[in-house]
Amino acid sequence: MPTRVTVYEVGPRDGLQNEARVVPTPEKLRLLRLLADAGLPRIEATSFVSPKWIPALADAGDVVAALPPRGGLRYLVLVPNAKGLERLLAARAAAGPGAAPVDAAVFMSASESHNQKNIHKSLAETYAAFEEVVPPALAKGLRVRGYVSTAFGCPYEGAVAPERVVEVTERLLALGCYQVSLGDTIGVGTPNQARRLLELALARARPEQLALHMHDTRGTALANVLVGLEAGLTTFDASVGGLGGCPYAPGAAGNLATEDLVYMLHGMGYETGVDWPLLIAAGELAQRLVGRPLPGKALQAELASRTLLAGKEG
Amino acid sequence: MPTRVTVYEVGPRDGLQNEARVVPTPEKLRLLRLLADAGLPRIEATSFVSPKWIPALADAGDVVAALPPRGGLRYLVLVPNAKGLERLLAARAAAGPGAAPVDAAVFMSASESHNQKNIHKSLAETYAAFEEVVPPALAKGLRVRGYVSTAFGCPYEGAVAPERVVEVTERLLALGCYQVSLGDTIGVGTPNQARRLLELALARARPEQLALHMHDTRGTALANVLVGLEAGLTTFDASVGGLGGCPYAPGAAGNLATEDLVYMLHGMGYETGVDWPLLIAAGELAQRLVGRPLPGKALQAELASRTLLAGKEG
Repeated sequence: MPTRVTVYEVGPRDGLQNEARVVPTPEKLRLLRLLADAGLPRIEATSFVSPKWIPALADAGDVVAALPPRGGLRYLVLVPNAKGLERLLAARAAAGPGAAPVDAAVFMSASESHNQKNIHKSLAETYAAFEEVVPPALAKGLRVRGYVSTAFGCPYEGAVAPERVVEVTERLLALGCYQVSLGDTIGVGTPNQARRLLELALARARPEQLALHMHDTRGTALANVLVGLEAGLTTFDASVGGLGGCPYAPGAAGNLATEDLVYMLHGMGYETGVDWPLLIAAGELAQRLVGRPLPGKALQAELASRTLLAGKEG
Repeated sequence: MPTRVTVYEVGPRDGLQNEARVVPTPEKLRLLRLLADAGLPRIEATSFVSPKWIPALADAGDVVAALPPRGGLRYLVLVPNAKGLERLLAARAAAGPGAAPVDAAVFMSASESHNQKNIHKSLAETYAAFEEVVPPALAKGLRVRGYVSTAFGCPYEGAVAPERVVEVTERLLALGCYQVSLGDTIGVGTPNQARRLLELALARARPEQLALHMHDTRGTALANVLVGLEAGLTTFDASVGGLGGCPYAPGAAGNLATEDLVYMLHGMGYETGVDWPLLIAAGELAQRLVGRPLPGKALQAELASRTLLAGKEG
């Protein structure tokens, strides 16, 4: 069994893009710095999506220009189309040499209707659009990661056949993505399903070419991660405090919380390079930025036990 | 792999005993009826602990006398001492023939300091006390289940050696308990730890003699249940809505939620006999009884998706 696991932190992009309160750029950078200090090796920082669609990420260029470099840390930025790639390349050029390394990421769904709803294209149109993004990005020296949404179920179509998910995954790898992250967008995945999907996917890809992006909507995220670990995967996505991931309702869970993932991994003896107290500090900051308690369980347990200890000492 | 899993519902006892608001007996019985209707095969109904310690359960006799019988359903009642056994036997006698079957349960910790704090006895004193409860209960035709708290960690001592947990388990089985439930009282357990503990325990006990009682304080409950399933266990404890289990703070998770457990089991193809809509109805009722949202994730996802659907239809 591998002893090192790579945690992909997606909170700053996925978590902050849907907030009612638009978090000011300096506060985003404060969170990014703290996550970087905590030792997270991969951080999804923002998205060069059109500000027309997601006004909260209109500052993507400023964010990328100011990303704090740390040894071994690579950032990711979503790039939905050729225009987005242009913006990313401009921001990188502005940041100059010595800037933190930034990879690109492209995303699509395994189901037609979710893809249509989310990025306003059919799957065929999306592949065509990615031809204008991925090969040019690679040609400019960028690394590109792929995300497949609705890999465990679609809010419009229900069950999604694992064969379809593997087909999309293969297309993204063939385009040149170094890794594809399989997303349980609505948090319906269960362990046998994860095992079956990974069996099929690992017949076509190496373990390091795959990642799991689980949602904890029904409490099954870490059980599915365990299946992924047993299948040989070494990369898992998560979000600080469980921020984002389109939870159904306030208090409901979306993205797997980074603290929960890291807690389990460390408890199992895996190395992540993540510093626990600094990760908790980042979770506290994320809560302050969005102005409400986040659903991450290990975060809440840690903060509550500190309060109890402080009470005993005081 | 076995295809049938037994879900032990502990909400009515474990969940309601620590509520600030004492839930009136008729409301407790309403919840018990709904859980029985939902098809849960085992329900921990109350405790014959001294009302001095837990006033909220002073109505244990009335509850036991009124437990709704259902085919295949057995209730459990905690019996901490000889006095408690006397009260249980009296309540059973009062309920008469045709009453629902009720088993007894005894509980202790794997760690000295938690046992002392929780039941005010050393481990040695507890074994001695159980000699006055378990054999007499068996002699009266009762079945007795055992619980081992702090089986994955102790709030006062930290790590608890699995060998100690297995020793307590063996003592309880030797006393005549038909099953021992290993409790992660503070929700610190991770999968390798669960695997190691079950390996040791299964060298001394049959799978059906063991159960897991996981807490979801750090999000790892279902990952640990998955390990239990893979080890051949077929019995898992959970609490409706995630009620109870001494969560650290409001909003923090204690007991694994029954809905989360049943969601994963059904998703994996296991039969539980539990009816999903009625289980959700029980979760809604539990929330009303305690007057706040409960932490169970699948419950919240289900209720939120209904609200969304109702909004779309309206």
